[in-house]
Amino acid sequence: MTPDVPRSLDERRKDALARFETDIDVWVSTAEGTGVPCLVPLSYLWDGETFLLSTARANPTARNLHANGRARLAFGTTRDVVLVEGTSTTVEESDLRPGEAAAFATRTGFDPREIRSPYPYFRITPIWIQAWREANEIAGRDLMKDGRWLG
Amino acid sequence: MTPDVPRSLDERRKDALARFETDIDVWVSTAEGTGVPCLVPLSYLWDGETFLLSTARANPTARNLHANGRARLAFGTTRDVVLVEGTSTTVEESDLRPGEAAAFATRTGFDPREIRSPYPYFRITPIWIQAWREANEIAGRDLMKDGRWLG
Repeated sequence: MTPDVPRSLDERRKDALARFETDIDVWVSTAEGTGVPCLVPLSYLWDGETFLLSTARANPTARNLHANGRARLAFGTTRDVVLVEGTSTTVEESDLRPGEAAAFATRTGFDPREIRSPYPYFRITPIWIQAWREANEIAGRDLMKDGRWLG
Repeated sequence: MTPDVPRSLDERRKDALARFETDIDVWVSTAEGTGVPCLVPLSYLWDGETFLLSTARANPTARNLHANGRARLAFGTTRDVVLVEGTSTTVEESDLRPGEAAAFATRTGFDPREIRSPYPYFRITPIWIQAWREANEIAGRDLMKDGRWLG
């Protein structure tokens, strides 16, 4: 059922940030340069500005992120959507901030430092964020453009 | 909490098919040939073998599907995943089966035939299907390979 009143920009931003803080997993979409999409769920750590992910270097997601530095993240459900388009940089363990690897392990429940095969981190910086629930929220769904929060 | 006993192949297939039948929306991931991913929720019609989608021809999803014919679909939640890799063919309204356009409209709640801007259909044929809930179901997650159900 579509609520009569669409949320304001402020409400949507607050809801999106609450989701980034409390969710554990996110759908991560990446692309091979040949036009083949990849889509998997991954756990993440949100630091208030970026999302830290980790996946095996041999996986398509890691290969795609490393090759072209682009990701699309989907939070929530198909009727309470938060979509994030972001740039990705590969981060080695030695380049993480102090305490960040431990925070990631606590948050996600797995610790890439303990895995024997190469398991790099990726830092996703949002450049475009949209949020909507039903059709009446399609207008005004942009929360961030070109890396800047609107409003 | 991870259940002790992973589901059998038969149980997972049954659960996946039940989801295809009952869900309304699916996360649809596509890729530009330049390595830019797209990820949006779309409604679909499942006919037992293929998924029928529709989106505006001007949208990145339509452009990507038309250009390279590849999609990745995610059903369910990040802790009850059904992933489908599929090939896509563009289908004009005149090429739909009898009754299919009406079934699509009933199922999804919108009718591309009533939209003035070009709104093609896309038929996604699964070639690879995986299903898992928690870590103990990663093994045995393949339900379909090369377009054939396993087991």
